[in-house]
Amino acid sequence: MSKDEGITVKKNDDFSEWYSQICSKIELADLRYNVKGFVVYRYWSVKSMKKMYVLFEEALERKGHKPYIFPSLIPESNFKMEASHVEGFTPEVFWVTEHGAGEKFEEKLALRPTSETAMYQMYSLWIRSYNDLPFKAYQSCQVWRYEGKATRPFFRGREFYWIEAHDVFSSLKEAEAQVKDDMETTKEVMYEKFGIPFIFFERPQWDKFAGAINTYAADTMMPSGRVLQLPSTHLLGQNFSKPFNVQFKDKEGKMQYGYITCYGPAISRIYGAMIAIHGDDKGLILPFELAPIQVVIVPFMFADTKEKVLEKCNHIKKELHDFAVEIDINENYSPGYKFHDYEMKGVPIRIEVGPKDLEKKQFNVFRRDLNKKEAVKEEDLIREIKKIISEFTNNLKKKADDFFKSTISEAKDKEELKRELDKGKLVKCNFCSNEMKGVKCAETVEKDLQGNVRGIRHDKVEKPNGNCIICNGKAEAVVYIAKSY
Amino acid sequence: MSKDEGITVKKNDDFSEWYSQICSKIELADLRYNVKGFVVYRYWSVKSMKKMYVLFEEALERKGHKPYIFPSLIPESNFKMEASHVEGFTPEVFWVTEHGAGEKFEEKLALRPTSETAMYQMYSLWIRSYNDLPFKAYQSCQVWRYEGKATRPFFRGREFYWIEAHDVFSSLKEAEAQVKDDMETTKEVMYEKFGIPFIFFERPQWDKFAGAINTYAADTMMPSGRVLQLPSTHLLGQNFSKPFNVQFKDKEGKMQYGYITCYGPAISRIYGAMIAIHGDDKGLILPFELAPIQVVIVPFMFADTKEKVLEKCNHIKKELHDFAVEIDINENYSPGYKFHDYEMKGVPIRIEVGPKDLEKKQFNVFRRDLNKKEAVKEEDLIREIKKIISEFTNNLKKKADDFFKSTISEAKDKEELKRELDKGKLVKCNFCSNEMKGVKCAETVEKDLQGNVRGIRHDKVEKPNGNCIICNGKAEAVVYIAKSY
Repeated sequence: MSKDEGITVKKNDDFSEWYSQICSKIELADLRYNVKGFVVYRYWSVKSMKKMYVLFEEALERKGHKPYIFPSLIPESNFKMEASHVEGFTPEVFWVTEHGAGEKFEEKLALRPTSETAMYQMYSLWIRSYNDLPFKAYQSCQVWRYEGKATRPFFRGREFYWIEAHDVFSSLKEAEAQVKDDMETTKEVMYEKFGIPFIFFERPQWDKFAGAINTYAADTMMPSGRVLQLPSTHLLGQNFSKPFNVQFKDKEGKMQYGYITCYGPAISRIYGAMIAIHGDDKGLILPFELAPIQVVIVPFMFADTKEKVLEKCNHIKKELHDFAVEIDINENYSPGYKFHDYEMKGVPIRIEVGPKDLEKKQFNVFRRDLNKKEAVKEEDLIREIKKIISEFTNNLKKKADDFFKSTISEAKDKEELKRELDKGKLVKCNFCSNEMKGVKCAETVEKDLQGNVRGIRHDKVEKPNGNCIICNGKAEAVVYIAKSY
Repeated sequence: MSKDEGITVKKNDDFSEWYSQICSKIELADLRYNVKGFVVYRYWSVKSMKKMYVLFEEALERKGHKPYIFPSLIPESNFKMEASHVEGFTPEVFWVTEHGAGEKFEEKLALRPTSETAMYQMYSLWIRSYNDLPFKAYQSCQVWRYEGKATRPFFRGREFYWIEAHDVFSSLKEAEAQVKDDMETTKEVMYEKFGIPFIFFERPQWDKFAGAINTYAADTMMPSGRVLQLPSTHLLGQNFSKPFNVQFKDKEGKMQYGYITCYGPAISRIYGAMIAIHGDDKGLILPFELAPIQVVIVPFMFADTKEKVLEKCNHIKKELHDFAVEIDINENYSPGYKFHDYEMKGVPIRIEVGPKDLEKKQFNVFRRDLNKKEAVKEEDLIREIKKIISEFTNNLKKKADDFFKSTISEAKDKEELKRELDKGKLVKCNFCSNEMKGVKCAETVEKDLQGNVRGIRHDKVEKPNGNCIICNGKAEAVVYIAKSY
């Protein structure tokens, strides 16, 4: 059972404290592990994260990806083969240097911060001809990054849980199509099933994945008014296939380098975004498919009627056998305490069953999407529960959509941009460029306004209609700017 | 598609070479990764291993275990808290000592070789009173051990995939009951679903888990006549709860140390055992529930009848929607080539659909458990397929049982023991003791006969009826001895 007092701060008053309480009082995560930056994840969050993994994996496999397991250790020499990759990732690497009673390895081994340099040498052995392409593989694993910024459970830690899909194609065009398909997968799973809204941005050239031609990343807004990066997909082109010699014989018999893409939904971070977006002042609200318990039945137990009440509970449970239903028969806690606890934990639906309900042939049903309790006639019960189930995640989605839309604004000049950023908005504005020549203005945004340029929208074409909001030079791009984590 | 020539050696002629070919030709594993001891697992094996994980996790959760995620890095000081644990595991630890461009950590961090020393400090924070017990948690993860012995895919590598369940109880009796329940779980999953027979032995005191009171381990026999250790469960008692301060307030308000057990089914190793036990000279044979493709439909495609044939294939697939069914429409390979390939890969059932079959209204059905092809009338097809499915894994189990039983023998004296060991048997004999005082005789067995004492059976009581087979002193135990990996 969770802490008695519940969440003691309102989400909109102090999001950061609210989030901390959510993580500790609902026992989602524990920060007291004695290695800095490493978090213990407890069962209520792990159960949902496992479901998230399954849903992403199903989507990836449906689209032709196959699961692999690659080693977590990467030799330093592999790691150094792509110049910008090593430059970008070196500061974040954990190095294994010895074993046993202090015997040194001849070569240092990196704990994978991402697996390009582990996987592509194997691709080079497996891929021979155009017949082997497209080659689509993924692995579900953890990665390690020596982060300097403060640890936040799910959002940021030095070990996090993700899926990485790495695909090889025989043409740039197909690789580009894959990048679009990764965005579509993100929508199918993260939006449709988890109810998390986002926009995919083409990241500015100064902020792309180390080694990529282009990075496309899904951004969502946190209730704190800060932007959070969710899955990103990278067009690597031939940048890695050349050093790792991923070649294929084309239809004309000529050797060519493959075109590579990679896609990385970080499950632990998506979980964090989900609880931040859907939760309310009472606690968690979980999309129906992700809830560890989907329907809880709370009996009122008195000595003389207990048997009959439990019989009814079991009957209801049986009728809902397609769902994760639990009957809470713990007699150490009162029904009232349990109501509060399950609401805090985000169990979607609660059915209350007492002796009076049996007499009246109707039951109180509580739904966490609308925080509403209603009496339902016995003969309508199962139908009504199924109706709530069918509406549940959509209701969460609608609320999340409304919030996300409300955070998007526009600015015509630097002062307005500052005002909007301070209000916690994702601000559209004219900008000199999303290419390297825009980096100076981006630095100004960072320094003067603590804002971060997220790039240009990928889902629609937006043409600048004025000059750069910072340097007043010719604007070649419409970018979005927000404060970020 | 797999290598054309198939498996070129018979399993009983040269098991080791057969196993290597199985792993490489069916593309289950790749040993060419450039860190010694680390193996890449490819999709055909990973798909089955994922199913194995789910089946074990389901059983553990049904029995009250909850999933957790603990960090993979353990500070050296934690690791040193239980004296025999550190002694046993130190030689096998990989150490993370630096990050970034060579900055040293103040304290070395171990890549977990097992998670007692990561988890129990958290248990000490979470467990307060007898009300919190039993506390049952598991994590599915990889562990790293710097193994000296030769790498064998699935059987032995320096990074392997397992589940570890760690439970705390308020009494030794409950902990002992858990150990029995772990054995039962092993039977429910590994025997009933994977068809792997085994015996649980109480390991000799000189061969127990570092830090345990007692270790119970499931042994099975490989076709090579060597014994292989599968899941083990350990009674840790209060050996770890004392240094890690896992205490609870009992019903009388007194503080007591918890009694701990841990259970570790190594999924990758179990997969290895499974393919070794069920496979035959053609290739893999997979238990029905674990096959990535359960039923493959191979159409004979000719220009004029292709449409009709594929229509029938789709119809059959639809009727078998509860199973993983694939229609192989690849026109680069002949049906005959495909038959061979799917048999090698261990797809349980194949249905052949050609224009003549449509006319005759009957289809050839091949089943991999009996390696038999039969013509089945159209109207009986689905019923027949379901019948095969219901028999399939049982047939594998029966064959495996017969083999396992055939490997168990008995010896009266050292010469007979040597003969039986050389024949590849698991040999029952009188032995001075399973306690520490038996260690000398065990060393003799190791040195003179290359045999390994596996301990006393846990599933039945066997009383010695003579003197120790080695020292001829009073025998206090009946042990089993085998050559091991």
